[in-house]
Amino acid sequence: MIVLGVDPSFTASGYAIIKKDSGKQALISCGFLPLPSKNLMHERIGMFYDFFKKLIIQYQVTHLTLETPFLGKNAQTFLKLGYLRGVLHLLSYQHNLKLIEYSPTEIKKAVTGFGGAGKDQVQRVIYMLFPALAAQKKYDVTDAIAISLCCTW
Amino acid sequence: MIVLGVDPSFTASGYAIIKKDSGKQALISCGFLPLPSKNLMHERIGMFYDFFKKLIIQYQVTHLTLETPFLGKNAQTFLKLGYLRGVLHLLSYQHNLKLIEYSPTEIKKAVTGFGGAGKDQVQRVIYMLFPALAAQKKYDVTDAIAISLCCTW
Repeated sequence: MIVLGVDPSFTASGYAIIKKDSGKQALISCGFLPLPSKNLMHERIGMFYDFFKKLIIQYQVTHLTLETPFLGKNAQTFLKLGYLRGVLHLLSYQHNLKLIEYSPTEIKKAVTGFGGAGKDQVQRVIYMLFPALAAQKKYDVTDAIAISLCCTW
Repeated sequence: MIVLGVDPSFTASGYAIIKKDSGKQALISCGFLPLPSKNLMHERIGMFYDFFKKLIIQYQVTHLTLETPFLGKNAQTFLKLGYLRGVLHLLSYQHNLKLIEYSPTEIKKAVTGFGGAGKDQVQRVIYMLFPALAAQKKYDVTDAIAISLCCTW
């Protein structure tokens, strides 16, 4: 079971790849992908597709996991988040991945034991699990790890 | 100049292909694609991608045109519309198409002369321009023709 968790965003999409083998989990790769705002919308979407397609093939991903989105203040941002999610759905179709979505509350509860936990609390638990990550300041990345873990547990 | 206009929707996406050659326009193809609700979301998105990819290659499309979306009553529908729009942006990137968006008002104004026109008024103008279409009852299709025309004018 090789899980890719993605927290998509046009600013920086966090991602994590976790491998589960006979009950043990290993963090194989994590990071984030910025989509430069100087590029046109369809170019940014193309970069996003190419990047995750490459990851899926390279790490032989079997599961794709996402957080269910909630409508924020800005409807245009919400729509554009849909563009990236649509691309991830397409990749899951093209590479035969099992796609699983969790609500923010489910993810926080699974990781910290408390559904109303803040991003910093989630991050602290991730650091405890993967001490080598402690220098990783970006919430996008720790969020993506939390999403992937939720799927392997 | 070969324009593909799409009015994306999970129920039935209308589309039209219009060719412009030395000032003359010809309607090359039009129709609609339903995405069966019995299929999973990522399968429906995959079908949508495969269908339009094939059309783009078959008709050597050069321009892709869309209506700018507006936030309806249902935020989830709006988000999912974003999935399909994201796929169209990706196709425009992969096939090097010029992507142009028009507001609903611009489209209605270009076609009927009046930005506040109803769907039936738009449809009547389309029937006048393409009499062979008069049996075409679906607004999805006539809307897609209107979107494509807007781009060739």
